[in-house]
Amino acid sequence: MGKQRATGAHLDPSFASDNVSGISPEVLEAISAANTGAALPYGADPVSAELTDWAKAEFGPAAEIYPVFNGTGANVVALQGLLPRWGAAICSAQAHINNDEGAAPERVGAMKLLPRPTSDGRLRPEDITEELGVQGFVHAAQPLAVSLTQSTELGTLYAPEQLSALAKTAHAHGLAVHIDGSRIANAAAALNTSIGDLVAGTGADVLSLGGTKNGALAAEAVVVINPERVSGLGYIRKFSMQLASKQRFVAAQLLALFGTETWRRNAECANAQAQKLGEQLAALEGVSVSGQTQVNAVFPELPVQMAQRIQARYLAHIWNTASSGNPVLRLMCSWQTTDEQIQQLVNTAAGA
Amino acid sequence: MGKQRATGAHLDPSFASDNVSGISPEVLEAISAANTGAALPYGADPVSAELTDWAKAEFGPAAEIYPVFNGTGANVVALQGLLPRWGAAICSAQAHINNDEGAAPERVGAMKLLPRPTSDGRLRPEDITEELGVQGFVHAAQPLAVSLTQSTELGTLYAPEQLSALAKTAHAHGLAVHIDGSRIANAAAALNTSIGDLVAGTGADVLSLGGTKNGALAAEAVVVINPERVSGLGYIRKFSMQLASKQRFVAAQLLALFGTETWRRNAECANAQAQKLGEQLAALEGVSVSGQTQVNAVFPELPVQMAQRIQARYLAHIWNTASSGNPVLRLMCSWQTTDEQIQQLVNTAAGA
Amino acid sequence: MGKQRATGAHLDPSFASDNVSGISPEVLEAISAANTGAALPYGADPVSAELTDWAKAEFGPAAEIYPVFNGTGANVVALQGLLPRWGAAICSAQAHINNDEGAAPERVGAMKLLPRPTSDGRLRPEDITEELGVQGFVHAAQPLAVSLTQSTELGTLYAPEQLSALAKTAHAHGLAVHIDGSRIANAAAALNTSIGDLVAGTGADVLSLGGTKNGALAAEAVVVINPERVSGLGYIRKFSMQLASKQRFVAAQLLALFGTETWRRNAECANAQAQKLGEQLAALEGVSVSGQTQVNAVFPELPVQMAQRIQARYLAHIWNTASSGNPVLRLMCSWQTTDEQIQQLVNTAAGA
Amino acid sequence: MGKQRATGAHLDPSFASDNVSGISPEVLEAISAANTGAALPYGADPVSAELTDWAKAEFGPAAEIYPVFNGTGANVVALQGLLPRWGAAICSAQAHINNDEGAAPERVGAMKLLPRPTSDGRLRPEDITEELGVQGFVHAAQPLAVSLTQSTELGTLYAPEQLSALAKTAHAHGLAVHIDGSRIANAAAALNTSIGDLVAGTGADVLSLGGTKNGALAAEAVVVINPERVSGLGYIRKFSMQLASKQRFVAAQLLALFGTETWRRNAECANAQAQKLGEQLAALEGVSVSGQTQVNAVFPELPVQMAQRIQARYLAHIWNTASSGNPVLRLMCSWQTTDEQIQQLVNTAAGA
Repeated sequence: MGKQRATGAHLDPSFASDNVSGISPEVLEAISAANTGAALPYGADPVSAELTDWAKAEFGPAAEIYPVFNGTGANVVALQGLLPRWGAAICSAQAHINNDEGAAPERVGAMKLLPRPTSDGRLRPEDITEELGVQGFVHAAQPLAVSLTQSTELGTLYAPEQLSALAKTAHAHGLAVHIDGSRIANAAAALNTSIGDLVAGTGADVLSLGGTKNGALAAEAVVVINPERVSGLGYIRKFSMQLASKQRFVAAQLLALFGTETWRRNAECANAQAQKLGEQLAALEGVSVSGQTQVNAVFPELPVQMAQRIQARYLAHIWNTASSGNPVLRLMCSWQTTDEQIQQLVNTAAGA
Repeated sequence: MGKQRATGAHLDPSFASDNVSGISPEVLEAISAANTGAALPYGADPVSAELTDWAKAEFGPAAEIYPVFNGTGANVVALQGLLPRWGAAICSAQAHINNDEGAAPERVGAMKLLPRPTSDGRLRPEDITEELGVQGFVHAAQPLAVSLTQSTELGTLYAPEQLSALAKTAHAHGLAVHIDGSRIANAAAALNTSIGDLVAGTGADVLSLGGTKNGALAAEAVVVINPERVSGLGYIRKFSMQLASKQRFVAAQLLALFGTETWRRNAECANAQAQKLGEQLAALEGVSVSGQTQVNAVFPELPVQMAQRIQARYLAHIWNTASSGNPVLRLMCSWQTTDEQIQQLVNTAAGA
Repeated sequence: MGKQRATGAHLDPSFASDNVSGISPEVLEAISAANTGAALPYGADPVSAELTDWAKAEFGPAAEIYPVFNGTGANVVALQGLLPRWGAAICSAQAHINNDEGAAPERVGAMKLLPRPTSDGRLRPEDITEELGVQGFVHAAQPLAVSLTQSTELGTLYAPEQLSALAKTAHAHGLAVHIDGSRIANAAAALNTSIGDLVAGTGADVLSLGGTKNGALAAEAVVVINPERVSGLGYIRKFSMQLASKQRFVAAQLLALFGTETWRRNAECANAQAQKLGEQLAALEGVSVSGQTQVNAVFPELPVQMAQRIQARYLAHIWNTASSGNPVLRLMCSWQTTDEQIQQLVNTAAGA
Repeated sequence: MGKQRATGAHLDPSFASDNVSGISPEVLEAISAANTGAALPYGADPVSAELTDWAKAEFGPAAEIYPVFNGTGANVVALQGLLPRWGAAICSAQAHINNDEGAAPERVGAMKLLPRPTSDGRLRPEDITEELGVQGFVHAAQPLAVSLTQSTELGTLYAPEQLSALAKTAHAHGLAVHIDGSRIANAAAALNTSIGDLVAGTGADVLSLGGTKNGALAAEAVVVINPERVSGLGYIRKFSMQLASKQRFVAAQLLALFGTETWRRNAECANAQAQKLGEQLAALEGVSVSGQTQVNAVFPELPVQMAQRIQARYLAHIWNTASSGNPVLRLMCSWQTTDEQIQQLVNTAAGA
């Protein structure tokens, strides 16, 4: 059986995704603080300038930052900047760009994705080298970038040395490296490092920096770490419909999170709550939690009736069916997940 | 000489556009009010449901509303919903979609625009009929929609009967009608009518409803008035990267403006201030204001030195050069424009 | 190891593909016969009319035929006619549209492909049903067509009842059925049926009818069997740059093949020669021929040195590496392959 | 009144276009001569190599040539090679790419065209400079190429010094120069020069070399004169579905025309016949021929009844309506137009 998608406005959304969360108070305050009369539009304002200063401090003096509205926008703008008309991007078969962006890469960016099956959402260097046989062959879309997600869509993490190995392999064969960092904050928090060290320090060329799941209203950015590999991002962002006229308010959201330690505090909370949720579920009879809970996603395999109890109350996606025949759910925690919410879900699962 | 675009972060932005304005207080309050813990993403939340109720009340029971991030997004999503792969949209040569969207209609929507020169930004029924000779001719992009801007990029207004005549002509020949309503609030306020009466009442099929210039942070919407002419908008919005995960906060902005009379108050303020600015500039020696100031844009033709004085202090676009050889500036007022700001600009112009 | 692509202008091309063949004499005569002074361009000529008559006789009275230049053109025009902007096509991972068309489906058609791994190039009904979980889910490209190749890129054949089962499954779930018939002649000859019976008779909606590999200079066509599932093909063919001004000469090629029994004779020759080649290679020590040689492709697994001997003289693609570690070559026969050519290749392989 | 397009399979096609002509005998012979058994596909054959040699001799040692199927294909492949994702091409409003390619530039190439009204189909240097105000402005598609047609869609010619002036202006501002040479043979013949001197000698970067109207079955090519301005053409041609598998037969057609003096003889014939037709029509009462007949198109303004007599028998497009109210027809001659055909049309016009 393939994937199934749950819907249902009457259900409790608390664990459906980390984007069910609201706006972190610091973000709301920053929006309000930036609301001081007239300001130049489209990024020529002082708040956007401050964001650029932050990016250079975090990712290196050559870095550039292009705020956008959402994660799909960040990914597709970034990949268009990396790929010529004939380019393709290697990604995991489970990648968000491959499954959950309505084919925006193909439709807006006219690019081909080269999805690689993975067991855990993580690409390995062989996933790059095995696609290189077609280099120079005009009949095949040319693999000129690799896009990896940190933390992955399966709730796993690349270790920094894994990222470095991938970047080294990619660069050795002329491919650029893009990181879909929709949850880069969760990754950096879990690895107890800075985002700059995790991304620029391991050789990535471009990052989709995710703010929304970390507590923003709607704020992401394309961060260019290596401008030599990227072309025309200013134009691309505009025609990709991701340039905000009142950009100061997008920049303010990003600064509220990443210009302070708010991003880390929010991510650590989400990760810790997921850890807690995983442990409490695993303590129930018949439940096992697939893999380690490395960041903020939990994938419990549960008896059918337990899954049904959860799905009767909560919006919860069946991720797949385990070899046992039992369903595996995906449950996500966010910066806003409370102990009470976890207790309630565990009680529901237990039929208590 | 063609158009020139001004830039300059050191300049006073107050009259550069209506998008230099901040967030209207009611909007900020609504965002805050919607920030109440977990909610379903992607529009399955109660605030989005309330927005849909508003749209049906305003535009008719068949109406649908799709919140998006910005005006370019609204226009290109709307036009993709109206046009098959072989369709083209008739618009004025001065249309925002033709000049100021980085070719997003062509690049994201793969559509051709059929621009018509106009003297005042307004299309006439002949602009439609004169493009119809190619209907059924496979060598030509098929004119299957007309896109008009209300109020126009030249600060003019279509009278309701002009809109009705255009819609009647379009529909008689199988074309759909799209209104770029980036400033529909200014138009409805100036015409002392409701947005619903102005748009649905005159026969439009789809509206790009503009919230940002009216006081939102970043909130627009595609309003479908006649669903029979539109296909796949939910999918199109997604792959066009205009679907907000935390959509409740976009919906809240739109409700704060359009679910109350805030939109009208804000638009009336912008229009009135532009009227005032036009009158005060026209009182200066050597200045004439092109056309009537119908909404919130003023196009004064000024002596070269006066224009230079203004441009030394303000970000102000030279719109064109009058037959006299004197420059024509475009100055915009917003819901936030104050009497003091107007006085200051007029003083600057006068060299006082 | 992934696929490797051979090149080399100094090598004998005879078995590199069936497109190394020249023009079948009947085709050249037909081109010459159509060369009779002025004729209306773009298909309004009598030869094109005759081709349409043939298509209706072969595929049913509702059938339409759109001649195009090449197979990629036929496939991408056909799929654009079947899919709305949000549609995706299920295909095998080995499909030509997925690997060998330079991402034309994605770039020209802005569509997503949903490739399914197969062991033998053939889709099964489960390949359709397993992709249906995302129907109606705006985040995923919508599977609205299935594209299958007959005969397949792996030299296998769908039995007519397999095609019928796929079409039935597809139609039951609202998907249209496209057949990439680049080698439909080889398939129909091998199955001893007519093309009409094989395609229209098993429920396909649209066929890419391949003439070039069967002996044309450059002539393929999109055949619409079920016009209710297709929109705007005339426009799509034009903007996809596949409409010949002097279309009579493309139509004449197709009529020379398919309006007579030339297609069958040419295909039977190619199939029989492949059968012979496979048998003679299999008789060599250490060689096994993967699968049955059903049409005109042979996939021999050979000792490394034998493969090297062949590749030193012939352009021959390594298709993959067998579990034994030995290479598998792809060798193709055409309507023009002679017994002498086969003998020479077998001698080369044998080191004789 | 706008343009009207004539159709009608029952009408005499002789003067409808120059693409109504058949295949020049030398071309048919060359196809036959190239039909010598197996040859490498996709341009790795000896005939294609010979075509490359010709191109280097004609256009300079750096030149590259990419055979394609038709003129739309040549133009859209060429422009994609010149323009990044954010680029736009300046062209005349009457350009074939703007009116007669089904919006292939926009749909396949995702580019914007910047059409300039002209009185005679010819761009002037000001048409370039007046579009430059938006350079660097992210809201506007960036004018990075100019595309001009020689001879033009209005039957006029650029003098070599006019081409040089345009190329000089374009290059001075960073724009590349593309020539749509669908009728470059007619132009070079009329100007009594070589194609190389006319194109490379005046500074063009890329040429769409037109063979079909000059007597080919279906053969055009993208000629790259200045490879430094072009990227990825091999890939672009492939995904634009313009790469012939049996390319030797396309190359053979081009060599038969351009590798000999056949192109000139054919073009001179077409031009001379048009001259004759224009003179004979102008001798009729009430007829005037717009402009000079410079190449092979004649635009006679005729009394309504005379136009009706012609249109009752011939497929003839009404090009526009003269200020007198009389229709202007477009009549085209080709390499195959005979004196008898001219006499017959003139007799028909005269009502004789």
